[in-house]
Amino acid sequence: MKDKSKILIKFGERVREIRIERGLSQEQLAHLADVHRTYIGMIERAEKNITLINIEKIAKSLNIEIAKLFND
Amino acid sequence: MKDKSKILIKFGERVREIRIERGLSQEQLAHLADVHRTYIGMIERAEKNITLINIEKIAKSLNIEIAKLFND
Repeated sequence: MKDKSKILIKFGERVREIRIERGLSQEQLAHLADVHRTYIGMIERAEKNITLINIEKIAKSLNIEIAKLFND
Repeated sequence: MKDKSKILIKFGERVREIRIERGLSQEQLAHLADVHRTYIGMIERAEKNITLINIEKIAKSLNIEIAKLFND
């Protein structure tokens, strides 16, 4: 994707923030969420348009409700 | 997708509920969200793993925050 979408940027920043709060590395979160090792970095950098199924996997792995990933 | 994911089913039901509250047809919502005419039906039937960019388009068209699409 050439232009990074604002919503993907916001989501990626939120994932990074909570991942760090939880004391997890990108690789650790990827393992918990059962996604590719490099995937969390791509999401945090807004390089991928994440799907709902993967949003749920990440939310579960961060032990947070999906809605809370979208609250400011 | 063979097995419909619970999260996609829940999301689709929520979209349908709010779309009907707003008095919109699937085609009208598709037009507002700038997605294909048949796309809203597929989402409501949990036949597609929606991406975050399209979640945002639908939320905006329903005039609701993304977080509220995921609240029970």
